[in-house]
Amino acid sequence: MKEFAERYKRELVDNVMPFWVRNSKDETHGGFFTCLERDGKVFDTDKFMWLQGRQVWTLSMLYNQMEQKPVWKEMAEQGAEFMLKNGRDAQGDWYFSLDRSGRPLMQSYNIFSDCFASMGLGALYKVTGKDEHAEVAFDTFKRILARQDNPKGKYNKIYPGTRSLKGFSLPMILSNLALELEHIVDVTTVESLIDKVVYEVMEVFYQSDTGLIMENVQLNGAFSDSFEGRLVNPGHIIEAMWFMMDIADRKSDKGLMDRCIDIALQALEFGWDEQYGGILYFKDIHNKPPQQLEWDQKLWWVHAEALVCMAKAYAYTGNEKCRVWFEKLDAYSFANFSDPTYGEWFGYLNRQGEPLLTLKGGKWKGCFHVPRALHKVYSVLQETPICTAIKR
Amino acid sequence: MKEFAERYKRELVDNVMPFWVRNSKDETHGGFFTCLERDGKVFDTDKFMWLQGRQVWTLSMLYNQMEQKPVWKEMAEQGAEFMLKNGRDAQGDWYFSLDRSGRPLMQSYNIFSDCFASMGLGALYKVTGKDEHAEVAFDTFKRILARQDNPKGKYNKIYPGTRSLKGFSLPMILSNLALELEHIVDVTTVESLIDKVVYEVMEVFYQSDTGLIMENVQLNGAFSDSFEGRLVNPGHIIEAMWFMMDIADRKSDKGLMDRCIDIALQALEFGWDEQYGGILYFKDIHNKPPQQLEWDQKLWWVHAEALVCMAKAYAYTGNEKCRVWFEKLDAYSFANFSDPTYGEWFGYLNRQGEPLLTLKGGKWKGCFHVPRALHKVYSVLQETPICTAIKR
Repeated sequence: MKEFAERYKRELVDNVMPFWVRNSKDETHGGFFTCLERDGKVFDTDKFMWLQGRQVWTLSMLYNQMEQKPVWKEMAEQGAEFMLKNGRDAQGDWYFSLDRSGRPLMQSYNIFSDCFASMGLGALYKVTGKDEHAEVAFDTFKRILARQDNPKGKYNKIYPGTRSLKGFSLPMILSNLALELEHIVDVTTVESLIDKVVYEVMEVFYQSDTGLIMENVQLNGAFSDSFEGRLVNPGHIIEAMWFMMDIADRKSDKGLMDRCIDIALQALEFGWDEQYGGILYFKDIHNKPPQQLEWDQKLWWVHAEALVCMAKAYAYTGNEKCRVWFEKLDAYSFANFSDPTYGEWFGYLNRQGEPLLTLKGGKWKGCFHVPRALHKVYSVLQETPICTAIKR
Repeated sequence: MKEFAERYKRELVDNVMPFWVRNSKDETHGGFFTCLERDGKVFDTDKFMWLQGRQVWTLSMLYNQMEQKPVWKEMAEQGAEFMLKNGRDAQGDWYFSLDRSGRPLMQSYNIFSDCFASMGLGALYKVTGKDEHAEVAFDTFKRILARQDNPKGKYNKIYPGTRSLKGFSLPMILSNLALELEHIVDVTTVESLIDKVVYEVMEVFYQSDTGLIMENVQLNGAFSDSFEGRLVNPGHIIEAMWFMMDIADRKSDKGLMDRCIDIALQALEFGWDEQYGGILYFKDIHNKPPQQLEWDQKLWWVHAEALVCMAKAYAYTGNEKCRVWFEKLDAYSFANFSDPTYGEWFGYLNRQGEPLLTLKGGKWKGCFHVPRALHKVYSVLQETPICTAIKR
């Protein structure tokens, strides 16, 4: 495992981060370009706020936890400056996108912009100690909690009452955000939020008959036999399980840890494509045709998060099945996603494993899942798994 | 060409329409099931209003123009009854979707529901002569014209002023709807709408440097170098060109007819996949990575509409290039989309031409493009192309 750890560190420091440092900085207007072709050339200059926040987070986190590289700090600060200057509407909610110069393009309909703005500024505060970074992170966090029951607000197109569903993404993100903002948010709020999201994820969205977590459930957690209700996103389940494992580790809750590993393994079995390898993007729980035309594609973030999940699961418990899955995912990902020629990972493969798009960044892919995953895997595999297992 | 005509008629009457008659009728609540598996089994019971309207149109049109089959009339009437009873909100705008029993699920954010409700009821009026069918078709048509500059209303997430674009879909549909409602709408309105949409399609959205029509342009018709602005949907261009050719035929405007054929051929050349055959779903005009993950898929409607376009182009003008393209499209479509085992066509193929989903109907595919295309090709190829060419 030490050899894996070294390889992940080299991939992060020599292959992935240099790609973003070299290509993503907008020297003219501030902020980051994220629409980058295979070789790093900028192909579009729009700025998606959630990816701006994510990149500020990644640079700040690596500066805090990996190495105090001045260029990482400087890029994080110039990203935050652009965000703070241009990113919010009059209510303090974050726009979805801006043009290159910072003028709003798309309204604040998407609460994930706010989640990653808060997370990015929270991490940057650990680097800079500037009050403004903590304050805006905290104010944004409060707005997220206030909006959480109707995150889309007036842009919500669902007719009220006929089929009320709630989505898994927000509680999932909040379970990670709560831990990320512990240094800013009071302990009572953090603890009660953690209890609430663990209950939502592990009880409400979890379905005992299949051992899986659904993307959308009825308000009381019951299964909904509809397109939305039948949808399974294996990557989301697996990513959420390592968020939950971090909480289990923090609480020394071995029961929760074991349940997380069971669910993650179940999601991997369910999502793995036996024909071509890799994890499918979407499946219908009843094997009906899903609405998502991209259902059979292999996405970078799904595999990056699965690597983190299995590395943590093995490191925390020594579970041999998790080591086997980790090695299988590692082989698939480094053979198909990683691009040693130009750096970073391809984002979108077709079912057969060939690049469907050769971009390295776009509207939905930025400097986040790959470097975070490489750093998490490196960090966790540095520890001796067996010692960790014995501790528990 | 007579042999082609016969084959298209048989495909329509023996393969496609029996599939819908057999499988899509909801005997309990009225209206149509459109979520049908390969063998016709209902896999979801939600009712999408635009597909309800489209099926009423198809059944009525075939009853009017093909054969007075009682079952077609009866199904059209029961579909319209369900629509009229449940389909509209307090403003008279059509919901996007209802549950099986008719309760609204998704608000009236999508003006294409209204377009196809109007078109369906307008065609049904020719069958039934009932005032209500004409009145609701006309009222809906007036609401579409009133909403056309901001069709999404309060659900529009674009921030005003930064990058104002307009979309091609609505003028394109209106060019067809105007002719479909000629028996209901006064002649001045029809003529001025036709003049307006021909100008929009052929001048504003058309870009002379590439010879193609863009999905989104600036309000003055200028190219927008953005994800939306660079998007080309070859199927949309080709479908719109046969709408325009119908108008050219009606006006005996040979100049317009020739331009339509040039643009359609250009779109076919641009969209054809030299590697695997078939027409790609989306391309970026500058060959940058498109946002649409489904960009390389082969969709039934694109190929159905291309068959209509090339059949009409050949029949109207005798242009030999169009005959060659028609035969190439015919070979691809009957080899890959048509399903002689269970009827109807597959909807979604992967780039290689294999079914990506085996459904015959869903949220976006109903009883419309395939039967309309088969009927149009059959009708137009029955006439002698050379005589038609000489007439002009």
